[in-house]
Amino acid sequence: MKVVIKITGKVFEPGNENLLGAIGDITKKLVNLGHRIAIVTGGGATARKYIDMARKLGVSEAWCDVLGLEASRLNARLIISILGDLAYNDVPRSVDEFLRAWSTGKVVVLGGLQPGQSTTTVASIIAELICADLLILATDVDGIYDKDPKKFSNARKYNKITIAELRNVLLSGTRAGTYELLDSLSMSVIERSRIRTHVVSIFNPENIIRIVMGAKGIGTEIVFD
Amino acid sequence: MKVVIKITGKVFEPGNENLLGAIGDITKKLVNLGHRIAIVTGGGATARKYIDMARKLGVSEAWCDVLGLEASRLNARLIISILGDLAYNDVPRSVDEFLRAWSTGKVVVLGGLQPGQSTTTVASIIAELICADLLILATDVDGIYDKDPKKFSNARKYNKITIAELRNVLLSGTRAGTYELLDSLSMSVIERSRIRTHVVSIFNPENIIRIVMGAKGIGTEIVFD
Amino acid sequence: MKVVIKITGKVFEPGNENLLGAIGDITKKLVNLGHRIAIVTGGGATARKYIDMARKLGVSEAWCDVLGLEASRLNARLIISILGDLAYNDVPRSVDEFLRAWSTGKVVVLGGLQPGQSTTTVASIIAELICADLLILATDVDGIYDKDPKKFSNARKYNKITIAELRNVLLSGTRAGTYELLDSLSMSVIERSRIRTHVVSIFNPENIIRIVMGAKGIGTEIVFD
Amino acid sequence: MKVVIKITGKVFEPGNENLLGAIGDITKKLVNLGHRIAIVTGGGATARKYIDMARKLGVSEAWCDVLGLEASRLNARLIISILGDLAYNDVPRSVDEFLRAWSTGKVVVLGGLQPGQSTTTVASIIAELICADLLILATDVDGIYDKDPKKFSNARKYNKITIAELRNVLLSGTRAGTYELLDSLSMSVIERSRIRTHVVSIFNPENIIRIVMGAKGIGTEIVFD
Amino acid sequence: MKVVIKITGKVFEPGNENLLGAIGDITKKLVNLGHRIAIVTGGGATARKYIDMARKLGVSEAWCDVLGLEASRLNARLIISILGDLAYNDVPRSVDEFLRAWSTGKVVVLGGLQPGQSTTTVASIIAELICADLLILATDVDGIYDKDPKKFSNARKYNKITIAELRNVLLSGTRAGTYELLDSLSMSVIERSRIRTHVVSIFNPENIIRIVMGAKGIGTEIVFD
Amino acid sequence: MKVVIKITGKVFEPGNENLLGAIGDITKKLVNLGHRIAIVTGGGATARKYIDMARKLGVSEAWCDVLGLEASRLNARLIISILGDLAYNDVPRSVDEFLRAWSTGKVVVLGGLQPGQSTTTVASIIAELICADLLILATDVDGIYDKDPKKFSNARKYNKITIAELRNVLLSGTRAGTYELLDSLSMSVIERSRIRTHVVSIFNPENIIRIVMGAKGIGTEIVFD
Repeated sequence: MKVVIKITGKVFEPGNENLLGAIGDITKKLVNLGHRIAIVTGGGATARKYIDMARKLGVSEAWCDVLGLEASRLNARLIISILGDLAYNDVPRSVDEFLRAWSTGKVVVLGGLQPGQSTTTVASIIAELICADLLILATDVDGIYDKDPKKFSNARKYNKITIAELRNVLLSGTRAGTYELLDSLSMSVIERSRIRTHVVSIFNPENIIRIVMGAKGIGTEIVFD
Repeated sequence: MKVVIKITGKVFEPGNENLLGAIGDITKKLVNLGHRIAIVTGGGATARKYIDMARKLGVSEAWCDVLGLEASRLNARLIISILGDLAYNDVPRSVDEFLRAWSTGKVVVLGGLQPGQSTTTVASIIAELICADLLILATDVDGIYDKDPKKFSNARKYNKITIAELRNVLLSGTRAGTYELLDSLSMSVIERSRIRTHVVSIFNPENIIRIVMGAKGIGTEIVFD
Repeated sequence: MKVVIKITGKVFEPGNENLLGAIGDITKKLVNLGHRIAIVTGGGATARKYIDMARKLGVSEAWCDVLGLEASRLNARLIISILGDLAYNDVPRSVDEFLRAWSTGKVVVLGGLQPGQSTTTVASIIAELICADLLILATDVDGIYDKDPKKFSNARKYNKITIAELRNVLLSGTRAGTYELLDSLSMSVIERSRIRTHVVSIFNPENIIRIVMGAKGIGTEIVFD
Repeated sequence: MKVVIKITGKVFEPGNENLLGAIGDITKKLVNLGHRIAIVTGGGATARKYIDMARKLGVSEAWCDVLGLEASRLNARLIISILGDLAYNDVPRSVDEFLRAWSTGKVVVLGGLQPGQSTTTVASIIAELICADLLILATDVDGIYDKDPKKFSNARKYNKITIAELRNVLLSGTRAGTYELLDSLSMSVIERSRIRTHVVSIFNPENIIRIVMGAKGIGTEIVFD
Repeated sequence: MKVVIKITGKVFEPGNENLLGAIGDITKKLVNLGHRIAIVTGGGATARKYIDMARKLGVSEAWCDVLGLEASRLNARLIISILGDLAYNDVPRSVDEFLRAWSTGKVVVLGGLQPGQSTTTVASIIAELICADLLILATDVDGIYDKDPKKFSNARKYNKITIAELRNVLLSGTRAGTYELLDSLSMSVIERSRIRTHVVSIFNPENIIRIVMGAKGIGTEIVFD
Repeated sequence: MKVVIKITGKVFEPGNENLLGAIGDITKKLVNLGHRIAIVTGGGATARKYIDMARKLGVSEAWCDVLGLEASRLNARLIISILGDLAYNDVPRSVDEFLRAWSTGKVVVLGGLQPGQSTTTVASIIAELICADLLILATDVDGIYDKDPKKFSNARKYNKITIAELRNVLLSGTRAGTYELLDSLSMSVIERSRIRTHVVSIFNPENIIRIVMGAKGIGTEIVFD
């Protein structure tokens, strides 16, 4: 099975070494089971640090984005350093470079690709290009909710959600920050190619294996009519 | 002045050699006047030909897009062959390559960059990265209308339009094909960096010089509040 | 067995999707049988379209050639989009890039490499570099004739031909267009390295497998003294 | 005059935006005065953050170095984002890429190049390759002292120092951390090509212009017999 | 004026340092006079040394050629090391890389590009691509003779020669080694684009300036009907 | 087992074809036994030839080094031409390129990487990056001696030596030329990552297999406390 895993940039912080190590272990297990894996990493706190500095210096939005995606590439390289020989030992910087890397048969790890584009969009385009069987969005909540679960005690998690429902949830505006999770372009790509997509919590990386194995009811699955 | 010109792919067809030559002449004049120019070319009929063949062969949407952007790069190279020494003599295939090309001081000509992304979006991102003074979208109509001018005789051309109005016009759905002109991402980029943008007809390329010179009332100008 | 297949650019046209699909299927079968494959694609009608436009614009011969080889690369990418994971997912643009691609173990698909050089020459140089066991020139006739079979009803097909005889046939000038099939440089390369070479019709792609399997009497085989 | 400026990674932290802006202004002034500038940035706190995480994950020393030099490249890109058109808009990742970048005539900004190599060594090799007239090491102390000025109140700053004296000072071991400033390889390069070198404080960037203008007595100058 | 100079590989030997220095000086003068220069270097004795070793090791002809062109690139780099800032500081390895290098405005120095192709062919293709005003083939004889001047005392030097005459002279076979000077492909390129071409002796590099300045009667000029 | 083999540049001379062929055979055997191999080649006589010419031309030390490392790359390519499909068919020119090459699973052959750096240092950094199990330094003496064995008949070969002892031997200065074998930076890298390292004679390449197989007492082994 070909699997693309998007990992939120929030985990690339001191203190999360055990979690990062677990992500490495999961990847090795999946490869040993015969799966092919691509990993896309977000920018996280390092991205925000450099973007904040750049903004104070009057740098344009596009260049702020460039700094953010360089930070996401630094996170990608940290994952590569954990994976060793299992991984393609460079971080692709464009679609061309990704495809060349993918052709080696290794795990390919990358960050962002372009200004004005989220790393979730990168993950969905990559998934479409390699005809991935599964796209996993591993983030800091355990699925998609109808309201912000941190603010509303009666927030309800979706086990399954259609792209149409998802657009409604995101438009309803009660979940600021979800933009990062799934923006308009990534939803269009997932929809047009009907890519099987799961949103799960990164804090329980074993769930990634369970989903690959076919387990149901973990996180939220995006479904098509 | 730094100017990004998006040229619709529709002009890259036999019979349009005079028009293509005129685009080359305009570019030379602008360079002689001291302006720096980047040109983004659409995919046009060649893109459609290859996408149609690929679709019949069951190729994924992402790879259809890849073929389309390779076709747009072929159009870019045709422009380069006209410009000669004036142009950077290769077609950048990623943001990195564009920035390296731009650093030479030459006219840079490129097509698309990624699947899932219009060449208008490429033009807007490029414009943002180089802090362009002006973005010109040269297409096959002479501006933005409230209705499709080919269907409605009472269609009214906007001399100026805000991004908010533009979103309404596009959402109203009466102008199929405008997607190609300005999609959601390109509007967001133009808006967030308040890039001065003009929509004009490519069939009168002298208008490009007039706009650079500061003429008013040609095509449609996108304005900000 | 290492096999290089040159495919005439003439097949990359709407209406030939079944043929292109068959070429993809043949390639998959050959890979499953344990063979390593490189494919070189010609430029065809797209090349001619752009070269014609460029010539009307007064572009130099070298740049006309550049446009032709970009068109052949577009055809290469169409083949890649059919092959998916089986293929190296980028089109090499130089000998260096070809060799890096070949090192991944994938099917490598490329078009032309340089102005002033036919794609048949590219195929012969590639064959020599990888010490190919077999070079197949798949074109729109079913072999090499002593006269143009479209004009002369008594034209005789060679089952075998030496390079010396081939030079005579080509010099005799009765077969305009054969230049495309085998030019002077490709014959020199085939000769100096005694590369086993077959000329066959692309319209019966199963013949490619038969030749790889060792069948005799299909198309024309180039032999050495 | 060709000038290479090494900037300590310590300044790439929130709160130092004014200092970073001043470095940008200084560079623009030097360019306007007709000088050609290359800037090498250290890795600083971001490098340490990623190296610390990697070490806890059991990553090899070479890969820790790789993460450190990616961090230094992120710092380089921040400088580029400040300089805009003045700078080569990409970060060279090897000597080849540096030389190609330098050939454009722009300010070139880079971080580290290889594991096992300090960014000061990078600066000295770059300086040697372009036959720089001046190498400025801008760090967080205002020159080279005979003892650690933060520990010894009687530490004496050298106005001039020979490489031989410098080796003695560094070997005497009283100045931990100087390794970062000038390691064995950078001293060898400076010595063999007798590169005019000044160590100055980055916190007073105007001094960089003064040194380029020929002022004496600022920081410490490395002299040759 | 845009000038391409092909320098025979024979001069890249110890003892010729003065000659190599003179070639550097000539190039600087031409640049100072406002000309743009590309230099193509042959492989010479180093090429032969490696090709001979490879042949004894049973290496294929294509790889022998590869070693020869790497040797020619080593010679190119020696010229670059003499030219310093005046030159593009890398050796292009493909037509794409040459064109990118040429776009910087620097002197570009390269060796061979492909197996099965002489460096004279490279020079003619490069000349055609950049629409060079002049192609100078600087070799170890002072022009083209009707017979080998080393063997026949009555050999007559041509002041002017047409491509048709040149083909006859080369076919007559009395001048072994001329293959290196002008092979079939380079003559075709020179002919189809009517590139002004002079064959001169490299041992009198001042002649290169004279020819650029318009002097007549030096070496042999290739003329067109 | 992952093995890095540094081969002295001295063997890349006419007359040594049998030795070079044997090195190729050894490499094939090691690959067939399931080992992964990287080979680093020195510059040898070709390097010296070009460096000598450059020095007479007044070229800077850094560019002399550049010529030396291009020569070492020519030697690397000769090894690749012997290995054929077994090898990655290009010579990496930077750490990034090496890592991409290594990801293909092929034997990777490279020369130097940077001015101011020995090919032994390259071999040690490469070994550290890929977590090599073994680093073999194949040179023209059969191990490390306490004195120069060519000058002192009572010179004693070490079977094992610690890095500390090694530093003393090298500092004692009685062994000019050992610099080439193990310089300060390569020793630091070997030490910090405790890379298992053997110094052996290249003139008996079978010894390389023996050491990989675990044989003791061949050449000199570097040991750690």
